Amino acid sequence: MNEFELIARLTQNLPTNASVVAGAGDDCAVLDLGVPDKLILFKTDAVVEDIHFTKETPPEKIGRKALARCLSDIAAMAGTPTAALVTVALPKDFDGEFVAKIYDGMNALAKQCGVAIVGGETTTNPGRILISIALLGTIPRGKQILRSGAKVGDAIFVTGELGGSIAGKHLDFEPRLAEARWLAEHFQLHALMDLSDGLGGDLRHILNASKVGAQILKPAVPVARAAKLRAKENTAAKPPFVAALTDGEDFELLFTLASKDAVKLLDAWQRKFPGLKLSCVGKIVAGEGILVRDRLATHTFNATGFVHFK
Amino acid sequence: MNEFELIARLTQNLPTNASVVAGAGDDCAVLDLGVPDKLILFKTDAVVEDIHFTKETPPEKIGRKALARCLSDIAAMAGTPTAALVTVALPKDFDGEFVAKIYDGMNALAKQCGVAIVGGETTTNPGRILISIALLGTIPRGKQILRSGAKVGDAIFVTGELGGSIAGKHLDFEPRLAEARWLAEHFQLHALMDLSDGLGGDLRHILNASKVGAQILKPAVPVARAAKLRAKENTAAKPPFVAALTDGEDFELLFTLASKDAVKLLDAWQRKFPGLKLSCVGKIVAGEGILVRDRLATHTFNATGFVHFK
Repeated sequence: MNEFELIARLTQNLPTNASVVAGAGDDCAVLDLGVPDKLILFKTDAVVEDIHFTKETPPEKIGRKALARCLSDIAAMAGTPTAALVTVALPKDFDGEFVAKIYDGMNALAKQCGVAIVGGETTTNPGRILISIALLGTIPRGKQILRSGAKVGDAIFVTGELGGSIAGKHLDFEPRLAEARWLAEHFQLHALMDLSDGLGGDLRHILNASKVGAQILKPAVPVARAAKLRAKENTAAKPPFVAALTDGEDFELLFTLASKDAVKLLDAWQRKFPGLKLSCVGKIVAGEGILVRDRLATHTFNATGFVHFK
Repeated sequence: MNEFELIARLTQNLPTNASVVAGAGDDCAVLDLGVPDKLILFKTDAVVEDIHFTKETPPEKIGRKALARCLSDIAAMAGTPTAALVTVALPKDFDGEFVAKIYDGMNALAKQCGVAIVGGETTTNPGRILISIALLGTIPRGKQILRSGAKVGDAIFVTGELGGSIAGKHLDFEPRLAEARWLAEHFQLHALMDLSDGLGGDLRHILNASKVGAQILKPAVPVARAAKLRAKENTAAKPPFVAALTDGEDFELLFTLASKDAVKLLDAWQRKFPGLKLSCVGKIVAGEGILVRDRLATHTFNATGFVHFK
């Protein structure tokens, strides 16, 4: 049983109540707690030593990444983050100075994004550090953009460049909060999420939730320089295009909207965010799964994104 | 640096914003997210294998305990729980059946308490299972009962019986949600919390936050049968009264209110909750720390409650 199979099983019969607008299965849960003009976003995300960071990672970057991953999920709903709780599980022989620096990195990003850190806890985890962040946010009432809204004919977009984030970006990425809110305010997005497991894996979540397929144009996928460099330096590394589709932790936005809005969006984006690439990488089609088109032919894309458990 | 010293250091300069009514340092954070008649409670709590449960603990009880601990924190604010996210960190060789049973135990308690489970994540934690729950709840606006409101002359109350919970109660306890809400609706509580680290340790949190001291009447402390049995069976075990003050995981309510309301409360409680003991164990006094009075003399109580890191 891999991670996705386990999650599918665990999420079958979850208890629910009248507050739930969207439960398990999207980037954040969406709750109606009675705020007249807003819905509440609720998300947790954990980073674990030797998986998401190493003993060599500077502690400030560990703390920053732990919060940034969660912020990226709020961005994936075009939301505004509000308040976070922090759980730090530590070996018994922990270094207080090290933990304080984890908080320094986290607090700096929280301040930058207007997020309050309202508590949490420390507990013992022999062997390794684990940090779990719980984050609340808000979206305008009725404006939730889920994974399930993609329609046949939609254009598929990604922000930034994909692949090779292990070279450094996985620690330094900027959660696309402002970009996602701007998109939601100015365009009618049909589906939206953030890329944590690679375009090839994450796009499948939109396709499955929306019961559609996708055709990706290989030359249109923005491959990050880091992915190209890795392939050049190491013949055993993934080819750059495969890295762009299957490397995890890009933390860019993936979204679809009606094709008729695509050119208008690209124009407006370039004026608003001149420093950040926006790429139309393909279109939503009838059927299921991902087809990849290059100049010569159309291929089925079978590789999945990053899966925690094998 | 022990757990409390580390927390004191980490909570010094936390980022805040206009939504924060009460941040780190109470049982739950209290947030104003714009619900006209309510404030939002926000809490996380983690259980770790070999600390809060063992390899022998039935998985249903592990899941139940993970959620029940968090629910007890909502009770500690006299709140109503709403929705939870569940983070399960698992060794790579996890047994899916075992994890499903953890969820069974958690889901049963969630249904009983009207809580929706709205998602979460699984991640890898080589070596041991760790479960972190993030929980949202609500309280009537302006009705938060913090640890900082105890006043000189207040009577100090505890529900249930204390000590020896390791014999079984730590897995089977009932979060005192209904009792706390009833108390808050019918009496003006000055301070309220739940007992997770023992009366001796937790009462100090109220005393420190309220800048007062306490006098405990030894014969008035309700010692659990489990604590008495342990002392009888094992001469190396804590004396029962010490166990009642220092054993962790009682998950009973600890609160103070004006002495003039004490008799009225005891009367009303007996009618409302005839199956659950309520004990007046002492009073709030000027000064600091805990004095223990028995028939012969008054002693200073120096022992602290359970501290995770030594």
